[in-house]
Amino acid sequence: MKIGILGTGMVGSTIGTKLIQLGHDVKMGSRTATNEKAIAWAQKNGIHASQGTFTTAAAFGEIVFNCTHGVASIEALNLAGAHNLKNKILIDIANALDFSKGMPPSLSVCNTDSLGEQIQRAFPDVKIVKTLNTMNCNLMVNPNLVANGDHVIFISGNDAGAKAKVEEILREWFEWKSVIDLGDITTARATEMLLPIWILLMGKYQSPNFNFKIVR
Amino acid sequence: MKIGILGTGMVGSTIGTKLIQLGHDVKMGSRTATNEKAIAWAQKNGIHASQGTFTTAAAFGEIVFNCTHGVASIEALNLAGAHNLKNKILIDIANALDFSKGMPPSLSVCNTDSLGEQIQRAFPDVKIVKTLNTMNCNLMVNPNLVANGDHVIFISGNDAGAKAKVEEILREWFEWKSVIDLGDITTARATEMLLPIWILLMGKYQSPNFNFKIVR
Repeated sequence: MKIGILGTGMVGSTIGTKLIQLGHDVKMGSRTATNEKAIAWAQKNGIHASQGTFTTAAAFGEIVFNCTHGVASIEALNLAGAHNLKNKILIDIANALDFSKGMPPSLSVCNTDSLGEQIQRAFPDVKIVKTLNTMNCNLMVNPNLVANGDHVIFISGNDAGAKAKVEEILREWFEWKSVIDLGDITTARATEMLLPIWILLMGKYQSPNFNFKIVR
Repeated sequence: MKIGILGTGMVGSTIGTKLIQLGHDVKMGSRTATNEKAIAWAQKNGIHASQGTFTTAAAFGEIVFNCTHGVASIEALNLAGAHNLKNKILIDIANALDFSKGMPPSLSVCNTDSLGEQIQRAFPDVKIVKTLNTMNCNLMVNPNLVANGDHVIFISGNDAGAKAKVEEILREWFEWKSVIDLGDITTARATEMLLPIWILLMGKYQSPNFNFKIVR
């Protein structure tokens, strides 16, 4: 499958590399076509890896991953262009962490709204599925790194077909065993609001290699 | 020990009853000394149970539990009186859930502040310890109800001695095995922000008998 990755950070490169390993064609997009991290990533990952602008990566992907910083996501998606994303699944991994007031960061949107909803409102013809935003990127693509994968991932979105496809990606490509569909995109508020405790726990454990499990 | 319980709802009566069973003297406080739920609770729980106003319950307790609705907690604590709480441990279980805009509720304070912090600022001479606010009341006093108690409870507060005492209460009185001290009272933001996903999961499971575990 042809997949676009928006963002050149740890999340984008980790997801992109995993998708290449699975045999997909991946284009990593950034603000310019000369981003050094994107060029290095594409060179390292073989002929199925390429890079370009947000626009060309969005146009390239049959499915697109939003791996940009949450506070810059809307701007990045505007650069990608609504017409390049139209009717596609956009997997939104971003968290709207605002570091401008120091550590720990706060959220630039939460409680009565969420980044997932903001993106869905701004791009009504795109199928936004919020997921993968509640754990470290190494766990995103390899949940078996901790506790034999016995922990959870959440999924939120308005389009049932898009959520079914994303759940298939999570289970079959990334090997997630426990996927919890929380409901429509408004439920992204709840997962985005997990970030404050995730950040505290990362500081406490001095490691990002942990995740939430729900016991009943 | 003499313990004051502020609030006559499910949380207050469940905690109060557990404390009575453990042999403590408990006074349940409410806005008036004629609250029917408080009178019924006191009559049902024997000679070590009593009831009165927020003021008399706060004055009675060597330790006080805030089991009021979060949006009304500051007002209830003002009625209790700062002088009646001075230098005492106040275990703050409340969540600032705002149901005024329908379901699901939003939080009336979050992200850059928390109810725990608001209470600590309003009552600087009281040792606020935020805990027990991230699970159903039956689990609060009996974590072994699910998964043999293999799940977590968080604790936040500025006073190390107060937190040590509350951790002892959680472990020895209520049988919690995994108590995570997140840090000072500002970390209450993170646990209060767990409520949105807790509420979604309760709806999904149609049961409040679940809790979070952290796997590493």
